[in-house]
Amino acid sequence: MTDTICALATAPGGALGIIRVSGPQAFDAVSSICSVDCASVAANTINFTHIVNAQGEALDEVLVSVFRAPHSYTGEDSVEISCHGSRYILNKVLELLIRQGCRMAEPGEFTKRAYLNGKMDLSQAEAVADLIASTNRASHQVAMSQLRGHFSSELSTLRDQLLKLTSLLELELDFSDHEELEFADRSELLTLTKAINNRIASLSNSYQTGQALKNGIPVAIIGKTNVGKSTLLNRLLKDDRAIVSDIHGTTRDTIEDTIDIKGVTFRFIDTAGIRQTIDTIEQIGIDRTYAAISKARIVLWLFDAQPTAEEIADITARCQDRTLIPVWNKADLGSVCCNQVATLPVIAISAKHGQNLDALEAAIYDAADIPTLTDSDVIVTNARHYEALIRAQESIQRVIDGLQNQLSGDLLSEDLRQTLDILAEITGGQITTDEVLGNIFKNFCVGK
Amino acid sequence: MTDTICALATAPGGALGIIRVSGPQAFDAVSSICSVDCASVAANTINFTHIVNAQGEALDEVLVSVFRAPHSYTGEDSVEISCHGSRYILNKVLELLIRQGCRMAEPGEFTKRAYLNGKMDLSQAEAVADLIASTNRASHQVAMSQLRGHFSSELSTLRDQLLKLTSLLELELDFSDHEELEFADRSELLTLTKAINNRIASLSNSYQTGQALKNGIPVAIIGKTNVGKSTLLNRLLKDDRAIVSDIHGTTRDTIEDTIDIKGVTFRFIDTAGIRQTIDTIEQIGIDRTYAAISKARIVLWLFDAQPTAEEIADITARCQDRTLIPVWNKADLGSVCCNQVATLPVIAISAKHGQNLDALEAAIYDAADIPTLTDSDVIVTNARHYEALIRAQESIQRVIDGLQNQLSGDLLSEDLRQTLDILAEITGGQITTDEVLGNIFKNFCVGK
Repeated sequence: MTDTICALATAPGGALGIIRVSGPQAFDAVSSICSVDCASVAANTINFTHIVNAQGEALDEVLVSVFRAPHSYTGEDSVEISCHGSRYILNKVLELLIRQGCRMAEPGEFTKRAYLNGKMDLSQAEAVADLIASTNRASHQVAMSQLRGHFSSELSTLRDQLLKLTSLLELELDFSDHEELEFADRSELLTLTKAINNRIASLSNSYQTGQALKNGIPVAIIGKTNVGKSTLLNRLLKDDRAIVSDIHGTTRDTIEDTIDIKGVTFRFIDTAGIRQTIDTIEQIGIDRTYAAISKARIVLWLFDAQPTAEEIADITARCQDRTLIPVWNKADLGSVCCNQVATLPVIAISAKHGQNLDALEAAIYDAADIPTLTDSDVIVTNARHYEALIRAQESIQRVIDGLQNQLSGDLLSEDLRQTLDILAEITGGQITTDEVLGNIFKNFCVGK
Repeated sequence: MTDTICALATAPGGALGIIRVSGPQAFDAVSSICSVDCASVAANTINFTHIVNAQGEALDEVLVSVFRAPHSYTGEDSVEISCHGSRYILNKVLELLIRQGCRMAEPGEFTKRAYLNGKMDLSQAEAVADLIASTNRASHQVAMSQLRGHFSSELSTLRDQLLKLTSLLELELDFSDHEELEFADRSELLTLTKAINNRIASLSNSYQTGQALKNGIPVAIIGKTNVGKSTLLNRLLKDDRAIVSDIHGTTRDTIEDTIDIKGVTFRFIDTAGIRQTIDTIEQIGIDRTYAAISKARIVLWLFDAQPTAEEIADITARCQDRTLIPVWNKADLGSVCCNQVATLPVIAISAKHGQNLDALEAAIYDAADIPTLTDSDVIVTNARHYEALIRAQESIQRVIDGLQNQLSGDLLSEDLRQTLDILAEITGGQITTDEVLGNIFKNFCVGK
C-alpha cells in the first residue's frame, strides 16, 4: 500500500460531490492543487480553499477535510474534498489528483485498506457494504450490529472456547497414561463441544432470516381474474417513504413493488409474465400462478366467492412449504364466504375501500416469522460467512463424533484446529488470499 | 429565517451521503441525536460520533462537521453529517432532525440564506446552480467567473459610472442658468453614457454565446440515405469521459449525443423522428431534414457524390441563418467530388476509417464562433440577467436620446435612476420580491 488512491465517494448528480484521497502521498497531492498545506494544518479540520489547475485557473471553491494517520477511516493520511456536484468539476479534480501521482481506487479499496491496517476485521468491512445497501429497519439493524463488532465478538467467544477445548485436549495428551483422568475430561469436553456446535448451528440457522431481511420476503398474490389482485397490490404499495423520494433525481424503480411492515421488506413476485396477469385483465394462465407460488414464501390467495373443494385441494397442495393466507376480497359487497379454508382462517377485506388491510398486513408479518431483533443480535446475512459456518459445523461435528467414539486426542486436535481456522476466515484473522479479498470487495461501491 | 433547515446534499446512491443542517437550532438539533456537543467543539472541526435514535439504538457511525455563524456557507450555524449512503439511514437521520424541530429545506434554500445573509449577491447565487450543472470547460469557466464575482464587479463598475453621470447631471441642474456650462457638460455626458451603453450592449450580446456554452450548440447531420450519417455520428460521439462514467451507477443518458470540442459542447439534434433517420436505413423524409435544419445552428451536409445544382440551391437557401459545412464522405473510395459547394469549402472525410475527422471537428468548432475565454471573462448565461440588461439598454438609450435632444436634466435623471435600479436587480442589491427569489431558487437542487 505505497500508492495513494482517490475516488468519488458520492453518487454523481447531487449538490455536493465528495472526493476521497488516501495514502502516503494524499497530503502532498491535495496540497499541490489548492492553497491548504495538509501536512501542517490540524488533523480533523475543515479548510476552505480553491482547487486550481495547472494553468492557475480556479476549478472550484471547496472544503478540504484533513485526517491524519492512524486516525482516519483507512488508517492512512486521508483527505476529503467537498466540491460542487458538477460532473465536469469532479472529473477534473480527479484528473488533477491522478496527475499528482494518485490512482483511481478500486471498488471497496478504502475499506480494504481499513481492514489491512487493522481498523476493522473482515466481517465488519463486509458490514459496511451491507449498511450502505440497507433499505429498511431490519437489514439496517443487522448490518449495524455486524459493523459494531457483535458478530466478531461472538466469533471471538467461540474462538476462546475452542482454544480452551484444545488446551484441555493437550492436557489429556500429556496425561494420556492416566486412563481415569481421560474419561472424566471427555465428558466435560463433549458438553463444551456440543455447546460450541449449538452456537455455530444457531448462527448458521440465522442465515435464512438474514437472507429474508436483506433481500425482502417474496410474496405472491394469486387468484382468478377480477378478484381485485391489482387493486390490492396498489393498496399495499401505498408510498410512505416520502423524504428521500421527494428529492430531485431519486430513482424510484428500486423501491417499487416492495412494502415495509414493521421494518421488514416484503417483495411482491415480479416476473414479467406474472406482472402482466396482475396488471391486465386477462385469463390467468395456471402456469403463471404456479410459477408465482414456487418463488414465494408467502402466498396471498385472493377470492371473492367460495373456492371449490378442488381448488382448495390444488392450491394447498402447491403451497405446502409456503405460508398460505386466504383472503376474501370485496367483503363490503356482502357476498357470503367461509371463515376458514383448509383450516386456515380467512381474512375478509375490501381492497377497493381499504378495509381490514391492517389485519392483512399483520398476517403477512406474522407469516414471515421474523424474530424480534435487538440492537446487538447477530444474524448472518453473508453467503461467505454462512458457507464458513457450515464447514465449521461439519468440522466440530467430527470432534463430537470423535469424542463419542473415543478417538485419540491428536486427531480431535486437528479438527479443532480446522474449526478455529474456518471461523478465523470470517473475520480475516487467518491469512486471507488476494482472491478472497478480491471477491469480498469487488461488489463494494467505488469510493468506500 | 428563524427556522432550521435540513436536507440531503448529495445524490442518493453513493458510498457517502451528506446531510446539511443550517439555522439557529442546528447545533441543538444535531447534538441531541449524537454525542457531539456542537456548540462547544471548535468551529471547522470534524467529529466522529454515532447517530442514535429515540430508542437509544445506533443508526450510523458518522462524521459531524461544525461551522459557526457567520463563517459558514449560509452565514448561519451549520452542521454537515457525513453518513453511510444508505437511503434508509439518510431518511432516518432526516426524520430525527425533523423531530428535533428542523424542517426539510426547499430547493436552493441554503444558497438563498447565503444571499439573504450577505455571503454572496444574487448573480453569484445563480452561478452556484450553473456551476453544479456545468458539464464542460466553457460552461464551467463562465459559471466559476460569475461565482467569483467578475460579473458582479462589472455591474459595480457600471453602477459607479451611472452614479457619476447622475451627479454630473445634478451639478448641471444646480447651474442650469449658466447655459455655456450646460453644453460643455452635455458632450462629456454623452460620451460617458455611450460608453456605458456599449458595455451593457456587449454584456447582453454575450448572452447568445452564453446560451450556446450552457446548453450546447445544436448540430444537424443531414444527407441522403446510406451516405454514412450514422457512422459519422458514432465516430464523433467517441467517449473520452472515462473517469466519472466508470463509476458504478453513473447515468449515461444525459451525456449521450453530445461531443466536446476544445471544452465546448455540441449537441446533435435529437428528435425521435430525426434520430430514426440516423439510426435506421430508410428513405429520409424531406420534412425531417428541414426540421433538423430549423433546430440547428450548424448543419453538416453529408454526401458521397456531387450534389445537383438543385440540391445545392435548396439546402443553401434553407441554411441561410446557419453555418453549413459540406462534407464529402467515403473519400477513401476515390470517387471524384468538388472542392467547393456554393463557395463553401468541402471537407473530405472517411467516417468509416476515421480519416480527416480532426479537420471536421476544427470546422465545427470554428463554425460555433466561440470567443477564447479567460478566467475572468464575463459571459451572460442567465435569462433573468439578459432580460434585465435589455431593459437597462432601453433605459440608457433614452438617456442618450435625451442628451442628444437637449432634454432637461431631471428627465434624464429619472432614466439614469431606472437604469441603476434595473442593474441592481441582477445582483439583488435592490429590494427583491419573494416571487423573484422563488423563481430563482426553485430550479436549484435540494441541499444547495
